[in-house]
Amino acid sequence: MTEPAYVAVDWGTSSFRLWLVDRAGRVLAERRSDEGMLVAAKAGFPGVLQSHLAAVDAPAHLPVLVCGMAGAKTGWVEAGYVDTPAPLSAVLRRAARVPDEARDIRILPGIAQRDLKAPDVMRGEETQLLGALGLDAAGEALVCMPGTHSKWVRVKNGVVEHFATFMTGELFSVVSRETILALAVAGAGEAEDVASFKAAVTAAFEAPAFAANLLFTARSRQLLFGSTPAAARETLSGTLIGAELAAGLSGTVLKVGITLIASGRLAALYRQAFDALSVHVNSIDADEAVRRGLSMAAAAIWTK
Amino acid sequence: MTEPAYVAVDWGTSSFRLWLVDRAGRVLAERRSDEGMLVAAKAGFPGVLQSHLAAVDAPAHLPVLVCGMAGAKTGWVEAGYVDTPAPLSAVLRRAARVPDEARDIRILPGIAQRDLKAPDVMRGEETQLLGALGLDAAGEALVCMPGTHSKWVRVKNGVVEHFATFMTGELFSVVSRETILALAVAGAGEAEDVASFKAAVTAAFEAPAFAANLLFTARSRQLLFGSTPAAARETLSGTLIGAELAAGLSGTVLKVGITLIASGRLAALYRQAFDALSVHVNSIDADEAVRRGLSMAAAAIWTK
Repeated sequence: MTEPAYVAVDWGTSSFRLWLVDRAGRVLAERRSDEGMLVAAKAGFPGVLQSHLAAVDAPAHLPVLVCGMAGAKTGWVEAGYVDTPAPLSAVLRRAARVPDEARDIRILPGIAQRDLKAPDVMRGEETQLLGALGLDAAGEALVCMPGTHSKWVRVKNGVVEHFATFMTGELFSVVSRETILALAVAGAGEAEDVASFKAAVTAAFEAPAFAANLLFTARSRQLLFGSTPAAARETLSGTLIGAELAAGLSGTVLKVGITLIASGRLAALYRQAFDALSVHVNSIDADEAVRRGLSMAAAAIWTK
Repeated sequence: MTEPAYVAVDWGTSSFRLWLVDRAGRVLAERRSDEGMLVAAKAGFPGVLQSHLAAVDAPAHLPVLVCGMAGAKTGWVEAGYVDTPAPLSAVLRRAARVPDEARDIRILPGIAQRDLKAPDVMRGEETQLLGALGLDAAGEALVCMPGTHSKWVRVKNGVVEHFATFMTGELFSVVSRETILALAVAGAGEAEDVASFKAAVTAAFEAPAFAANLLFTARSRQLLFGSTPAAARETLSGTLIGAELAAGLSGTVLKVGITLIASGRLAALYRQAFDALSVHVNSIDADEAVRRGLSMAAAAIWTK
């Protein structure tokens, strides 16, 4: 087994992931837990990190590179933001050192868009972008990063020029659980209904202003036509994703390659959505992207 | 004091209103309570109604006309629907008689749009339409009825041709209370910020696909520019209403008169929104409209 060179940590709002990585970027050990920022802010960030470092037998001198919400004002150490237009190379140059720790621990900054008409922030996604696109990718890319708060990002020659956050995942969660539509969705279980999903994506993409109406049709269609709870759930999901795609793809020159960075079920769902619109995307695994981004940043910081 | 001729009841999901009305349509007495369908379904509809009838000393022979969710499948007696294209005159002809009651009690049906692409239902709003437009209004009207579930209705020569429900009010409620944006809105109190509201209405009207992004700017603008909780709340409210107006007004020939049926704070809010878009509306009070609609229907049913 090769020697570990550094530790990479993706510390989000509600999840913690750690990788022990060698000089060539190979993963020697991995840890996952739900000790995200919200839990660690109470339990203490140093203790949570130390318990996972001990579990993978990380040597005491081994440096640690962190990305994500641990660098927020409400996190461990505020790592600030690089402002747009933001070179991805600036993100790794501006890592904040955690004070009063014997070990060299640094947290990557986020990216801020200080535009009063379109203010926006990201923290964690910049590291996925680094891993997916590399430091000095020539040309333009439009990147879709779905999630609780989906990000759509325009990157040109390694510089994040513009981005927008859509509350798609969180809206799906509250609409399907906390509104009258919870009745329509109840009992849907794991049943799939790809046809209903694609129909909703297309309808919302074509008339996104009607999103708040298309959501309600999930209930009306059940009342008047007896459609299933699974169809209702897919209508909600497809409507919200279809409206997001209408905005994200608006004004897009279709020669620009579209990159989807996502994992698991979310990746499959968004691939279906793009497919419903006959839009081609390059798909990159989000877990893989963040690990690769952290490794690249760590190599640049510590392997001079 | 004149003799009462009938009792009019607007029985919604969460509210109950009753008026004792004379032959000329004048209100002799009024009752309001929160014993809506949800409460009455447990407490029992006959008992709730009887307690209010007793409180206004309604004579035992006096007939009662009800509109709203009391006529839903989950209500007192299912009053069915008139299907679109739905003449408002058919609504009052098809009132359902409550069985096993000595008193003549009837419940007005709702309206259903049995279109698989745009299924929709209303129950209660048809009575407001009757009161606001009358039975045989010539010409076309586009009617906006804001609320938990806003309705936009096209009426031509007394016939409801098409309508759409938007979950605007309910979305505002869950987004401002159950998402990360609750943090941005906390402490807003009753403070107003008309400029933020109108700016959000305009932004969402111009780019409704971006609604789920514009909502998130309420938080980003606070993080990056220190804007107030009141500004955040108005951004949420303005974004959702602006997107609704974009859909409701889409394809509208502006020669068609637009009628706003709303009461109180909601009426003021929507007038501000139309004002931000320089769209003229005729405003009608919703309480007044439903009472007048019930009186017209009662007169037609019992004063032959």
